[in-house]
This record gives sequence, C-alpha cells and structure tokens, in this order.
Amino acid sequence: MTFIILINTKDMRGLVHKVSGVLLNLGFNIEKNDEFVDKESNHFFMRTEIKAQNEIKKDIIYQKLQEILPQDSNIDIIEEQRKSIVILCTKESHCLGDILIKHYSDELNIDIKAVISNHNNLESLVEKFKIPYFHISHTLPNQEKLIIEKCKSLNPNLIILAKYMRILSPNFIKEFPNKIINIHHSFLPAFIGANPYKQAYDRGVKIIGATAHFVNNELDCGPIIAQDIMQVNHTYSWKEMQRAGRNIERAVLAKAIDLALDDRIFIHKNKTIIF
Amino acid sequence: MTFIILINTKDMRGLVHKVSGVLLNLGFNIEKNDEFVDKESNHFFMRTEIKAQNEIKKDIIYQKLQEILPQDSNIDIIEEQRKSIVILCTKESHCLGDILIKHYSDELNIDIKAVISNHNNLESLVEKFKIPYFHISHTLPNQEKLIIEKCKSLNPNLIILAKYMRILSPNFIKEFPNKIINIHHSFLPAFIGANPYKQAYDRGVKIIGATAHFVNNELDCGPIIAQDIMQVNHTYSWKEMQRAGRNIERAVLAKAIDLALDDRIFIHKNKTIIF
Amino acid sequence: MTFIILINTKDMRGLVHKVSGVLLNLGFNIEKNDEFVDKESNHFFMRTEIKAQNEIKKDIIYQKLQEILPQDSNIDIIEEQRKSIVILCTKESHCLGDILIKHYSDELNIDIKAVISNHNNLESLVEKFKIPYFHISHTLPNQEKLIIEKCKSLNPNLIILAKYMRILSPNFIKEFPNKIINIHHSFLPAFIGANPYKQAYDRGVKIIGATAHFVNNELDCGPIIAQDIMQVNHTYSWKEMQRAGRNIERAVLAKAIDLALDDRIFIHKNKTIIF
Amino acid sequence: MTFIILINTKDMRGLVHKVSGVLLNLGFNIEKNDEFVDKESNHFFMRTEIKAQNEIKKDIIYQKLQEILPQDSNIDIIEEQRKSIVILCTKESHCLGDILIKHYSDELNIDIKAVISNHNNLESLVEKFKIPYFHISHTLPNQEKLIIEKCKSLNPNLIILAKYMRILSPNFIKEFPNKIINIHHSFLPAFIGANPYKQAYDRGVKIIGATAHFVNNELDCGPIIAQDIMQVNHTYSWKEMQRAGRNIERAVLAKAIDLALDDRIFIHKNKTIIF
Repeated sequence: MTFIILINTKDMRGLVHKVSGVLLNLGFNIEKNDEFVDKESNHFFMRTEIKAQNEIKKDIIYQKLQEILPQDSNIDIIEEQRKSIVILCTKESHCLGDILIKHYSDELNIDIKAVISNHNNLESLVEKFKIPYFHISHTLPNQEKLIIEKCKSLNPNLIILAKYMRILSPNFIKEFPNKIINIHHSFLPAFIGANPYKQAYDRGVKIIGATAHFVNNELDCGPIIAQDIMQVNHTYSWKEMQRAGRNIERAVLAKAIDLALDDRIFIHKNKTIIF
Repeated sequence: MTFIILINTKDMRGLVHKVSGVLLNLGFNIEKNDEFVDKESNHFFMRTEIKAQNEIKKDIIYQKLQEILPQDSNIDIIEEQRKSIVILCTKESHCLGDILIKHYSDELNIDIKAVISNHNNLESLVEKFKIPYFHISHTLPNQEKLIIEKCKSLNPNLIILAKYMRILSPNFIKEFPNKIINIHHSFLPAFIGANPYKQAYDRGVKIIGATAHFVNNELDCGPIIAQDIMQVNHTYSWKEMQRAGRNIERAVLAKAIDLALDDRIFIHKNKTIIF
Repeated sequence: MTFIILINTKDMRGLVHKVSGVLLNLGFNIEKNDEFVDKESNHFFMRTEIKAQNEIKKDIIYQKLQEILPQDSNIDIIEEQRKSIVILCTKESHCLGDILIKHYSDELNIDIKAVISNHNNLESLVEKFKIPYFHISHTLPNQEKLIIEKCKSLNPNLIILAKYMRILSPNFIKEFPNKIINIHHSFLPAFIGANPYKQAYDRGVKIIGATAHFVNNELDCGPIIAQDIMQVNHTYSWKEMQRAGRNIERAVLAKAIDLALDDRIFIHKNKTIIF
Repeated sequence: MTFIILINTKDMRGLVHKVSGVLLNLGFNIEKNDEFVDKESNHFFMRTEIKAQNEIKKDIIYQKLQEILPQDSNIDIIEEQRKSIVILCTKESHCLGDILIKHYSDELNIDIKAVISNHNNLESLVEKFKIPYFHISHTLPNQEKLIIEKCKSLNPNLIILAKYMRILSPNFIKEFPNKIINIHHSFLPAFIGANPYKQAYDRGVKIIGATAHFVNNELDCGPIIAQDIMQVNHTYSWKEMQRAGRNIERAVLAKAIDLALDDRIFIHKNKTIIF
C-alpha cells in the first residue's frame, strides 16, 4: 500500500521528526520526503510518499498525525490510485489532441472521463479514442449549469480547460475548488484576456509563452503552476506566433497536469508550492 | 574598406536587384546580405555588409542609392569603425561590472567613453579600468541638464542605462533619439516600473526575466531588443530572485549592446527588426 | 504560382544580383530571400520564394538560371505543393503519435502516405487516423527489401524514422539519398548507438537531449538538422530520463520535419545550412 | 551558530527521524532539510541546515550522530563561514574576469586567496582587484610541484581551473581530492580534449555547451556538476562558436562554484547528488 501525505500547518520546531516518528511507528517506509518553510508567513509544507506491507486504514494515519500536529493543520492522505480528469474545450484541438495521444500511449497514467465542449467539431477526434464527448452548446440558456452537473456526476480529480474559451462563473469555480486548471497562451501576468498572441505581436516582444494556472474568480490571475517561453523575432506574424506557441502551450499544460495528478502541489496565498 | 548599408523604405518589386546592382557597379563585394518585408505595413528592410579594395566615398554610395530608391527612403551608410558608449548607472554594479570586464577582455570591441552616476560608490571600480567616472548627484537641481551636456560633449554611439534608476525626461530622450538602451529586470510588458522582482514574487510566477529596450517617453514601453528568462520556484524569496536574475540582466544587456553596435537593428513602429 | 528556388554553387561576385535579375525578368515577385556564403569552402547558398501571376514553366526558370550561373551549380526549382512522408517505426508510439495528432489538426501540412513497422502493436493507433499501416516483420528474411519496395512505390518526399530501432543498410540509404530523417535520443555526438538514456544515466550528465539528422552510412553520424536538451538531476533514474526525454524527441523531430518539408535545408559536407 | 550537516550512508528505515531527533535534542532548529535515496545502490544522502542559539561544539554533534548512524557512515559537519578558492588559469581571461568582478560585487561570498597562472598576461587584471598573482611558468622543470606547494600553503576550500589548459597529474589530484573543479567548453561527454569548438564545428552540431566537473584521473571524465547549452547554426564559424560559448562557460562555472561552496554537492560513484 502506497500513500502520499500532504501536510501544511504553521511552522514549529520538530515537525519533521514528529511526523516521521508517527509514520515509522505505523510501519511505513518513507520512500520520498520533501519539506519547505515559507519564511514570510511562517508556514510549513511537507509531502511524504510512504509504503506499507500491511494494510493500514487512512483513518488511523489521519488520527495519529492529528495527535501530534497543531489543531488547525491541513492533512491530506491520498491512497495511490489512478486519477481521472474531465477536459473542457472549445474548437482548438492541439492541447486536447496532445492529452488524448499521450493518454493513448499511457504516458499520463490517468483516466479521461469525458470531453465537454461548447462546439461539436472535436467530437470525431475524441471518439477515435473511445472517450465520451458531450456537446453542450453555448447557445443553451443554462449551458454552464449543465456543464457543472455533468462534471459533478463524473466526479473527476481535475477539470482541465484545454483552450476552453469561455470565462467560468464564480458558481462554477466554487463547485470545484482548486481543481480547475487552465492553460493561458502568454507568460502571465502579461497579456491577460483575449488574443494574447495579437497583443504580443503588437507590443513587439522577443519571447512568447504559456502559463498553466488554477482558476479563481479573477481572470488569468489564479495560482500559477508552470510557465515557459520560446524566442521569437520580427519575422513572426501573430498567426505564426500562435502556431509556434502551440508547442509551448501543450508542454506547459502537460507538465501542470502531471504535477497536479502526482499530488505535488500546495496552494498557499494565491501561489503554488510544488515538490 | 568595409561599410554597412541600412535601407528601409516602402516595399516594391526589384529592390534587392537594384541595390545589389549599384553596389556591384561601385566595385563592392557583398559579404553578407539580409532582407525583410513587413507585410503588415508593406515596408522593406535591407542590411548589407560590403567590402571594396579601392577607396570609395560614402557620399558616392549614398547618391547612387538615392537615384534608384523611392524618394523618402531611409539610407544609412556606416563605415566600419570602433564604436563608443557612455554608461549611466546608479548604485548596482553587476551590469556595469560585466561590461567593464568584457571590455577589458576585448570581447565587446567598443570604447567606453565614460561612466556617469548619480552616486559615487562605483567610482573605485570604474577607475580600476582607467575609464572616466563622472559623479553627477541627483541632489543637484540641474542634474539632468548636466548629464545631457556631458553626454553631448562625449558624443557616444550609444548611451547604456546599466541599472540607472531614474526616469529620463522627454528632453533627454529627444537629444539622443534611438540611442539610449535600458535594461529592465522583468519580461516586459509584465512588471513595469519599480521593483519588478518584488512584483514577480508577489504574483507567484515560475519564471523571471529581463528585457533590453530602446528608451522612449513611456516608461518601459520602448522598442524591445532582447529578452530572456529563467525558471524559478517557491523556494526563491524576492531577494533570491533578484540575485539570480542578475545573470539574465547581464546577458540580455550584453546581447542588446552587441546587436546595436553591429548596426543590426532597425526601429519601425515601436518594434525592432534585427538581422 | 509559387516556387522555391534552391541554388548552391561556388561563390563569385554578383550572384544575388544576377539571380534576382532573372527572376524579375520572368515577372516574379521575390517574397523571401536568404543567402549564405560558407567562407571555409567558398560556397554560396541561396533560397528564394517567388510568386508569379502568369503561368511559368519550371523548365524556363531552370534554363534562364543555368545561363547565368556557373556550369556545375546545383539548381532546384520546387513548385509549392503539399508534401508527403512515410513513417517507419518499431514499437514506441510517442513520436508516431505526435506526428499523427498534429497531422490530424492540420498543423503539419503534409500527407502521411503510410506507416511501416516491423511490429503490429501500433496498427490500431494508425488506423484510427485512416492511414495505411504495413506490418513488415523483421523476422522476414527479405524484410528490408520489402520495405524499400513499399517506400519506392509510395514515393514520399521524406522517410521519417520515428523511433525505428533497426539500422538501415547502405542499399536502403542509397535509394533515398538525403530523404531519410532519424530522431536519436541523445545530444549527438554523445551517446551514439543503443540505449543512450542508460549511457547518459551511467555518465551522470545534467542534461539529456535529442538530435534529428539525415541518415547516412555511419550510425548516428549524418548531417544534423535540429537538437535540443532539457536539464535533469540526480533524482532521475534512466527510465525517468527516457520518459522525460520523449518530449524533447517529439519536439526536435517535429521541427526537423517542418524544416525539411519547407525546403529550407541544404546539405553540404555532412552539415546542414538551414534558412 | 549555523551548521550544515552532510550525511551519506547505506539506506535503512528511520534515518530522517533519528537524525532529526539528535538535532532537536541538541537544541537546533532545522532551517532546511533535503534527502535522497539512490535506489540503484541503496544509498542515503541528507543535507541539513541547522541553527542554534547556544554554542555547541562540532565534536558533540558528530559524536551524537555517530551513535545513531551505521558504523561506516560519512558525516560532515560544516560550520558556516566564508569559503576560499584558488584560481588556476592560462591565458584566457573570460572565466577569471567573471569570477573577479562577481567577487568584487560580493555576489560570490568567497575569498580569492590567489590566482596562479603558467603565463603572466593576466597579472595586471588580477592586481586591479588586489589579489595575489603567482606566475609559475610551464617552462619550469618542477612547475607542477611548485603549484601544488603553493596551493597547499594557501589551503583553499576549492581549486578552480578557470580555463587552465594543462592536464593535472594524478599526484596533483591526489593532494586535493574532490576539491578541484574544471570548466570544459563542450557538453560532455561529447568533444573531450583539445579544441572542442573546432570539433563541434566540424561535426556540424546545432548546439554548443559547457560542463563544470570535478577533476579525476581521466581527462574530462570526472563527476559532472553543471551543464548548459545554447543554440547555434550554420552561420557560426568555430571562432564565433568560441566567442558565443564564453557566456555559457562563465555561467556554468559560476553555478558550479556556488553549489560547491554552499556545500550542496555529494559525490557518489563518479556522479553528483546536488541539493
């Protein structure tokens, strides 16, 4: 049995010693351990991968950790298992296709429960891979409500906005706190909002980029998970920036999905701590 | 004799053929040739390095090119020679020191006519390299006027703001059009203005960067010459971002100086075309 | 009508002027033009994209260019049209899948005439995209002969070795000179041959990489088209290097295919000149 | 009082718990803690930064750790203090100059005890910074013996080969085990030995790089600390590769010095583990 333990709490002396003591007494081997203290807020973060030969209940681990940690500590105990995602998209296929094909090659180690789109042009692609496709058109008056319900019934570990070109309402976000990842096609906080490649072209930048972030109620302002860039020059039209940028978008989104599904990300004060 | 010819004009058929014809007739060998057409504005850019065995006057080349180019064409004919810079700085030594030491190793192929600072703490460093240092304090009521006069009397090819922490007035900029290069410690247009590393830290970005640009009347908004970034993570305090970022600042500024002094940069509509 | 003209010949004065003159006289607009002189071998390379409103025969262009160029010049005149590839692979799907999915999204602007493999495990993937799949087993005594014949009958512009794990005989290579591109999973010339990730792990390098190159008769020693790397550290087992490296392999191979099919590559003395 | 504890030993259950227990009992705060287990060799590595308010002797810490660790464990307890280096160089100034100028700006937090060279051309540069310069010519019959003696009398924490163009004898290396860092101007293991830029040019690679490594008895084969690359293309002569590559050399060497002097590097089986 393999578990990942995520602890975040206010910092104090001896936390690593105490936590490792609990896990040893329960008979676990610590396979991998990472800690970090945010000095600014005096907050402690710890991620531990453990393995046991006997069967041990999550409840027991939780209770033992609670006994030695401060009262308001956040403790997550995640049994290792295949994770699942739902993908939301609009019309562009490059991020979706990249996830589908990596999933097919078993590079991602996830289940894709469904793809939901406000258009139907990607249906034939998704069906090649025997993955359910739900076309919930933006012309429907209660579209968002329908998408929320569909997502709730599918109950994925993560919702991936793979070039989903609509803004989610606070209602939507509230239903899936810290579970929605968006890929934005610029190096945030530059070029927030619509058509960042056109904005980049107009400004005459020499780099273009992409940013994967958790979605919160402020547009393109959620906690950043991963970012990368590539060099461009004066020969790029904004359409060529867009074409070239797709490679960065794909790579950055794939990296963010990997990190999130490996339970490597803490969110703290609109930032991420990533082990 | 070696010249660099810079031509920019509205695009029309046969420009390369005509220009190369003029240069061949004057007995030049074309050593290197680059062209670009900006489709959006239908504008033509050409940079040509030429070599002649006989002595030929710039005036003659200029006149012959004028005869075959449209009337309002921009033609620059630059005889190859060692270029010169004046460096403006405040208190930080890392960009200044990098230029000084590369200059010492003859990696930059320039003359540094002087370093001008509103503080005196860098004087002993500059004097090691036998370069004039002028301390013109920001407490002087007419400081900027004094700096302008000093720069005019030194007549450099470029003025380098190597972490010069004051904003130049439109007056200053007007005196040295397209001759002032600034290094800003962020990937513009993100984090304009003061303390971009603190801004970057507060936003929780996963990359930090630097941008070298020509200075115009809008803060950090001039034509961009070069940009680069490095990856950071949650373990970086903003002071550590600042420390690590110095390497990017140095590299990006050095690259921009190289490009400008090799006469590789056209400015067009607040952007740069760089060959 | 759009053509790409590729010229390589020994360098002499006035080549650009002469070639541009021929093209103007034939009524072409020069859309894009690149030149390079290899000083070491005194060799000239020129790539020109031209457009004409009237119909003009390739033969005419060829004849006119021959008249003004040295006798032994290499002149290629390529009418713009959709290119085609044949993909050879073994068992790994990541490079193949990346090409298939980008092809589906029309990011590559090519036809995939067929996929040929010495195994059958990738057949179901390829068939999703309605692309012919030929399983020509390595257990067949005349396997290579069969593959050569299949390739000849398909007559593609390029043959892509997308993780094809067998060495081609000189016979094979001779049939498709400068038309076979391989992706090798190391930064060549390091780690030639089998299992470069294991070799990299054993050496303790801090970077891993990939190289796309034309295939010649010496293993992993053909003209290099594109290379890139990523940083790794001590936490990577060689299996994890292999997994992470797939992203570099995909990106480098895709870039090389792009460059080759845009007719941007000259081969000269076992190196590439790429415009 | 601040200490860095470095432990490497064969892996067993509970090491983190035991070590953290010892440190807590001695009254230390653990400021930062990193662990790694090399699965292949079943070996454990731990680096811990600790701070105490009372004065505590290294001997005590050592003894307490020995009591709870396996008998043949390697335990290093390093009291935080300014480190020192000696630089060996030949004629090239770029790596030396970069260290000198960063040292001047206090970016490196080290003492440079001396520069030793087999030539005298860098003397005037070094003296600007008031650092002792020893010219020990390679024409002297006992040159290496003299350099060894000089280094031993200076007793630095590290010896930096900043483009030192001679091969050290096994004798030299034996005197300073794991204390000599070299910068090699290629992405090792490619282009070992003399003139790697020329080798890179001849091979037609599209990247050039640099590698910082500890020196052992096999040329350019010691444990690698840091590597990086930059993209090049056909327009680079090997002299231009050499010029451009200097920026990579400087950056990679500076990074390696930083890591070594922060006591972040373990050497294990000709590889490095770096926290």
